[in-house]
Amino acid sequence: MPNKPTYTLPETLIWSNGLLSNGLLSNGLLRVLDQRKLPHEIVYLDLHSLKDAWTAIQTLAVRGAPAIGVAAAYALAQANTTNSGSDDERLAKLVADGDYLKSARPTAVNLAWAVDRLINAFRKTLQPATLAAEALAIHQEDRGICQQIGKHGAHLIRPNTGVLTHCNAGALATTGIGTATAPMYTQYVAGVSFRVYTDETRPLYQGARLTDWELTQAGINTTLICDNMAATLMSQDAIHLVLVGTDRVTANGDVVNKIGTLNVAILCRHFDIPFYVACPSSTFDQTIPDGKQVAIEQRQNEEVVGHHAKAQQVLNPAFDITPANLVTGIITEHGICKPAEIKNLLGVPQ
Amino acid sequence: MPNKPTYTLPETLIWSNGLLSNGLLSNGLLRVLDQRKLPHEIVYLDLHSLKDAWTAIQTLAVRGAPAIGVAAAYALAQANTTNSGSDDERLAKLVADGDYLKSARPTAVNLAWAVDRLINAFRKTLQPATLAAEALAIHQEDRGICQQIGKHGAHLIRPNTGVLTHCNAGALATTGIGTATAPMYTQYVAGVSFRVYTDETRPLYQGARLTDWELTQAGINTTLICDNMAATLMSQDAIHLVLVGTDRVTANGDVVNKIGTLNVAILCRHFDIPFYVACPSSTFDQTIPDGKQVAIEQRQNEEVVGHHAKAQQVLNPAFDITPANLVTGIITEHGICKPAEIKNLLGVPQ
Repeated sequence: MPNKPTYTLPETLIWSNGLLSNGLLSNGLLRVLDQRKLPHEIVYLDLHSLKDAWTAIQTLAVRGAPAIGVAAAYALAQANTTNSGSDDERLAKLVADGDYLKSARPTAVNLAWAVDRLINAFRKTLQPATLAAEALAIHQEDRGICQQIGKHGAHLIRPNTGVLTHCNAGALATTGIGTATAPMYTQYVAGVSFRVYTDETRPLYQGARLTDWELTQAGINTTLICDNMAATLMSQDAIHLVLVGTDRVTANGDVVNKIGTLNVAILCRHFDIPFYVACPSSTFDQTIPDGKQVAIEQRQNEEVVGHHAKAQQVLNPAFDITPANLVTGIITEHGICKPAEIKNLLGVPQ
Repeated sequence: MPNKPTYTLPETLIWSNGLLSNGLLSNGLLRVLDQRKLPHEIVYLDLHSLKDAWTAIQTLAVRGAPAIGVAAAYALAQANTTNSGSDDERLAKLVADGDYLKSARPTAVNLAWAVDRLINAFRKTLQPATLAAEALAIHQEDRGICQQIGKHGAHLIRPNTGVLTHCNAGALATTGIGTATAPMYTQYVAGVSFRVYTDETRPLYQGARLTDWELTQAGINTTLICDNMAATLMSQDAIHLVLVGTDRVTANGDVVNKIGTLNVAILCRHFDIPFYVACPSSTFDQTIPDGKQVAIEQRQNEEVVGHHAKAQQVLNPAFDITPANLVTGIITEHGICKPAEIKNLLGVPQ
């Protein structure tokens, strides 16, 4: 009988021996894998300050909405664990620090969600130890949520399925087995045979640099393609399922994700291929009615132009909006729902 | 009154003073712009032999179906202008040389077409001067065909149109004003204001390196985007027309073109945007019933992997097949036709 497959995951974020006996976090123990160096170098960055964390998030050293949330929670807890002053002063400092962190990646709703969760918890107790406890809880929950997404989405990957993914919604984007990749890791250890096609994801190549590396080193069959090759593979019946992550899902179920996601969703509609989005339910943003209201981060021209071109005018939107009607289902820690069912899932009054 | 806009085109291929008084071609005067060095360096390659021409075509120093056809015609004429031996021996040498040239880019139907045209002409007269005359005729016709495509397609670009193009079917792909770009140059000198969005065209960046450069230096408003951004621009009503070239059109109207073309055609169907293909009618290949019969050139993994990735498994098909039903119309030197009307255009018995 063959051995069951196993895998090794990259450690996206390390928080070690962080809880002191008084319930506070110690300093200097937050480390993140510097994803800008992957796949060629495995280098960790120590984040000693709020500014270190802001820079790591803004420059994409740590990236992926859930991982950003966990990193921000630890950084915020660490920076506010020894504040002095009145309750109001300590709360004001915490809120200001949180606003600063949020400004590093405005599109990542989990970042704001994690920051607000720490602020709300602190508001109730006014105890610094609450910050540490909340950050540790967010971290532990993130791992659990990934496992649950994997469990709920696993049945979508049947034997010999070709799965396409875009960008990196993998273990590297979380502190667990990823979101879009969670069903892949789950089926891999269950011994199911399948192949993942990874879009390289221009302009920053997150698929080529991160997802292809992460899945390949775990032992999963992975083929790298350019973003513009997916249509051909679909026309050849090589792709049967698309799984992607998301940075924000608006109240009506529109999906904000890495530029190129809308493209894939339209191809899925054309070829009648299921298009699933995987995310923690904290990615749902009920404050924004639909995707048209989302401000899209425009990044530097240089990311597109590179060494090969001399273009004078360039567009470089970091994200696009996939309308809810192109989404087959959203996989969360609570199960799979249709975009229109988000409100039920969250218990929002109709 | 403002001056009429004018433009300067790159000289893709130069044949100077090539016709001797006896009607034969002289040696060593075939030069091609080395497109691998663009846009950073303007360097010309002198093609002294058939092997030089084969290498220039195979390594994409000269590229674009029409330009390849003209270069191959000159190279073949030059290499066979002083052959000795019997008529049969000279014909056999010409055919062998032609087969050799064809092997440099099997997907480019104009290459085979130009070679066969020289062989057929020689078969009739058995005079070496015929080869020179035929090569010069192909060259002259190519310029005229581009002008005619521009004339027939110009009305598609109305004032304030956003036009998307993929890869390079520009002046650099021909010896005239290009195929897909011919309506752009024509409307530009007519004073019509419009904007071209250029897909960068992974993995070899022909759009970023060639089309963006060619159109920008001519003075046409051009914006470079990554291939996966077109869907977003279409969803924002920034793109109203797609114009692309093609390497081969099969008997049923399926279009073989640079990888990523099918992707754009599907997006056009989704957003109800006209998708036009521009080519000389010599690109029609009546010997192949449909796109399923076309062997697609698979190129090296290294083109995709680049410096950023370490992927072990890669796909790199150079072309894709856009089915005839996604093509709004084909613009040739004879006018615009539906894919199903190709046979009428060519006078093929039904």
